[in-house]
Amino acid sequence: EILTAIEAQFRTAGLLTGRRVLVTSGPTFEALDPVRFLGNRSSGRQGHAIAAALAAAGAETTLVTGPVARPDPAGVTTLHVESAEEMLSACREALPVEVAVCAAAVSDWRPAQVAEQKLKKGSAAAPDIALVPNPDILAELAQPGPHRPRLVIGFAAETEKLVEHARAKLAKKGCDWILANDVSPATGTFGGDETTIHLIDATASESWTRMRKQAVAERLVQRIGRFFSGPPMS
Amino acid sequence: EILTAIEAQFRTAGLLTGRRVLVTSGPTFEALDPVRFLGNRSSGRQGHAIAAALAAAGAETTLVTGPVARPDPAGVTTLHVESAEEMLSACREALPVEVAVCAAAVSDWRPAQVAEQKLKKGSAAAPDIALVPNPDILAELAQPGPHRPRLVIGFAAETEKLVEHARAKLAKKGCDWILANDVSPATGTFGGDETTIHLIDATASESWTRMRKQAVAERLVQRIGRFFSGPPMS
Repeated sequence: EILTAIEAQFRTAGLLTGRRVLVTSGPTFEALDPVRFLGNRSSGRQGHAIAAALAAAGAETTLVTGPVARPDPAGVTTLHVESAEEMLSACREALPVEVAVCAAAVSDWRPAQVAEQKLKKGSAAAPDIALVPNPDILAELAQPGPHRPRLVIGFAAETEKLVEHARAKLAKKGCDWILANDVSPATGTFGGDETTIHLIDATASESWTRMRKQAVAERLVQRIGRFFSGPPMS
Repeated sequence: EILTAIEAQFRTAGLLTGRRVLVTSGPTFEALDPVRFLGNRSSGRQGHAIAAALAAAGAETTLVTGPVARPDPAGVTTLHVESAEEMLSACREALPVEVAVCAAAVSDWRPAQVAEQKLKKGSAAAPDIALVPNPDILAELAQPGPHRPRLVIGFAAETEKLVEHARAKLAKKGCDWILANDVSPATGTFGGDETTIHLIDATASESWTRMRKQAVAERLVQRIGRFFSGPPMS
């Protein structure tokens, strides 16, 4: 396995030299009060592996990561954020880039109000948490404009109707590729080390065999290298 | 500092030999759907340090912990749970014990409904999360009865009116001691390594100087040893 990783690095070494890339990784934590938050189970494993693989291929890599129990990858400029709003700000500051890979599991919503003091349980009925939509970082980065990266790549974490949901997401967000994976609890993808990826663009889809997230990162880097030297999905 | 830790271990070695104790630690994660949850920022540092210190003092120690990025303490029977309901079940199975230390930051509420599939953002307005109260593990363990531990110790994480809130909690829960600490973001207590503790029982309170959570654990073990050999707060 170590040999496979070394071989992969040889295959991609220098492939992206000098290209500026941005990767997001991990969950976002959306504060409800000073101690409570709405979070999700993203471990950051996939996003961090992609950032490390891009840097190993020579890219000038910025990683914007939510809270994860994981070291900063070597050779990567890593920015730590908590919320979706902080993640969007950090991404904007990293522009312009040629490639953006949005692997973070950004919370779709955040609590409408953040209490300054810890909410007391008190004797009243349990509260409802009113939510408001978060900024859509993938859609923002994919918006047409002078700073749009040439390649904007999103992830879709689905528990059902994988390709159908992913293609709808591609169209809605305006991004170029979606890597769709199945995160049903039974698959162990969230927090686990293996995943089955479906790569989808506007006109085609392909399924990769089940592989380690490290291998997904290497294969994606090869794909990105091919994009810059020829047709993206051939 | 290493010497201090070693000295503390000598002071407590054998102090609790053969006594069965239960410690809870970490946050609880309350699922909203297969990937999202309501969580809190407890790192498990304090609870794990207490379990380790109790075991070092000779106690037969069971630790019930929520999700933390932290190894199981040596010499401790460690049970891993996610939600408050799972934590309560695991605690019940650990009974009878002579001492229960509830250091976990148990979520007061959980989502009323857990979606089997990941909630889709869709085009509708952001949803509200309806909450229902979680079981109160500290109060359950402190209930009078043949299995009540002789000493039930709770923590109070407060951001204001520390001693006042803690004493109200002691009365309401029916526990014997409360260790109250200030978790305002400015203090760095959640996830940090130092804390200022106020030990409160039915008739007295005392403040400890700011110290490392490891030192809090050692001092608490000494206090528990004194409880079993004399008046609890003298």
